[in-house]
Amino acid sequence: MTEIPPDHPRYASLMARERLVEGLRKGWVAEAGLTAHGRGEAFDYLLGETTTPPAQEAIRAAAALLLKAERPAFSLNGNVVALARQEMADLLRVLNRERLKLGKLEAKAEVCLFHRTEARIDKLVLAMAEVEVPALGRNPDATIPGLNHARALCDSRGIEAADVILVPLEDGDRALALREMGKQVITIDLNSLSRTAKTAHITIVDELTRCVPKIKEEVKELAKEGDKTIEKVVDGWDNEKNLKAVIDFLTSRLKALSS
Amino acid sequence: MTEIPPDHPRYASLMARERLVEGLRKGWVAEAGLTAHGRGEAFDYLLGETTTPPAQEAIRAAAALLLKAERPAFSLNGNVVALARQEMADLLRVLNRERLKLGKLEAKAEVCLFHRTEARIDKLVLAMAEVEVPALGRNPDATIPGLNHARALCDSRGIEAADVILVPLEDGDRALALREMGKQVITIDLNSLSRTAKTAHITIVDELTRCVPKIKEEVKELAKEGDKTIEKVVDGWDNEKNLKAVIDFLTSRLKALSS
Repeated sequence: MTEIPPDHPRYASLMARERLVEGLRKGWVAEAGLTAHGRGEAFDYLLGETTTPPAQEAIRAAAALLLKAERPAFSLNGNVVALARQEMADLLRVLNRERLKLGKLEAKAEVCLFHRTEARIDKLVLAMAEVEVPALGRNPDATIPGLNHARALCDSRGIEAADVILVPLEDGDRALALREMGKQVITIDLNSLSRTAKTAHITIVDELTRCVPKIKEEVKELAKEGDKTIEKVVDGWDNEKNLKAVIDFLTSRLKALSS
Repeated sequence: MTEIPPDHPRYASLMARERLVEGLRKGWVAEAGLTAHGRGEAFDYLLGETTTPPAQEAIRAAAALLLKAERPAFSLNGNVVALARQEMADLLRVLNRERLKLGKLEAKAEVCLFHRTEARIDKLVLAMAEVEVPALGRNPDATIPGLNHARALCDSRGIEAADVILVPLEDGDRALALREMGKQVITIDLNSLSRTAKTAHITIVDELTRCVPKIKEEVKELAKEGDKTIEKVVDGWDNEKNLKAVIDFLTSRLKALSS
């Protein structure tokens, strides 16, 4: 890895890019994943590389929905694993601990790829095993209707069975196909104008490694506050309004930057 | 290459991405070049993937300065060659034909890399030879002050000797170092807020393959119009004002997209 001094003003962003490049070399990430990451970087740059107030609200809503769900699942692709496998593992563990206390089923993790190859699936399942997450994805026995064959494959115990899916950095077609299966979709996407952002029930417009630990904190917080608060947060959620607030934030940032 | 139907609404953008991925496989492009391209894609998406009116003005100013210069040079990196070697070759040929008619020295092309390796330089010089451009860069005998060793290397007949440099898709440090050498810097950069954009004398905020043929057309046009017009266009140029117009364009696009 290139050495980046920790006091560099854009340390977090540069480290994230290094993790992606490493991910490409290890065969976790597809080349198209690198350009997708670059697009994210540009939007994050415009946001000021910070969790905005509307993103913080979306994070809380996501935590509430993950606690409320009957059968939640995390859908993991190469970029997600390369950037934030540890953060995703930590979130999953805390979520499952709190869900267990509430007498609920465990949330599942599943590796699910846009550019699916069995070799890449194997590597990513292994990468998750290294952070002690038993991820599904190797033996798909179900399909997501409306997607072409390789992209449609999923596991009947994971994505197919889920009522709520956390799919960070996801493509618009799959987000829509999951929604059309009747699932509630939570996404993390730096492009507030993307189809994924518009399709999801909860869109967190924030950088992955920055927001996942915050979802974990909100899960702990909401578990303490209890069912009534969880219900209230889920019921009060308005994704369209939140996306508008993000775009207003962006517009004022651009104005400030140009003056 | 992935097949993309020519009637796809984002055909040009998707083809450009494919060229970059091919460039990575051929060893022309560094991995960091892919994320940089992704950042450009995001900004181009916000621009509406179109040459804006202020970009068109910057294109005309760039053409005028390339005609007026004593010794212009093009600085080419891996992304530029992968995306637009043919377009750059065509521009160079038309520029040199018009400069010859005006009794002026030829513009030079030089391969100059951020992540320099001799193997990559060789491949890129060869790639330019395939489009009949004799590019410098293999035998650097000069340096750009203020940059670390590998990044500073250049040719005394090319970049060092130049009074005007066209450096598309360039990093802020190098743009600044060239400016501090007393050169006039023309850049092409989709991020209107970047250090490169702010450092250059003329910043064309446009996508490379879309704007280079337009620079060529303006070169032809201005050569016809003659010295007085060329002088007037160069003298009347205000880069700061133009960047402000680009950001105003972006801001209104964002507003329109969110409503």
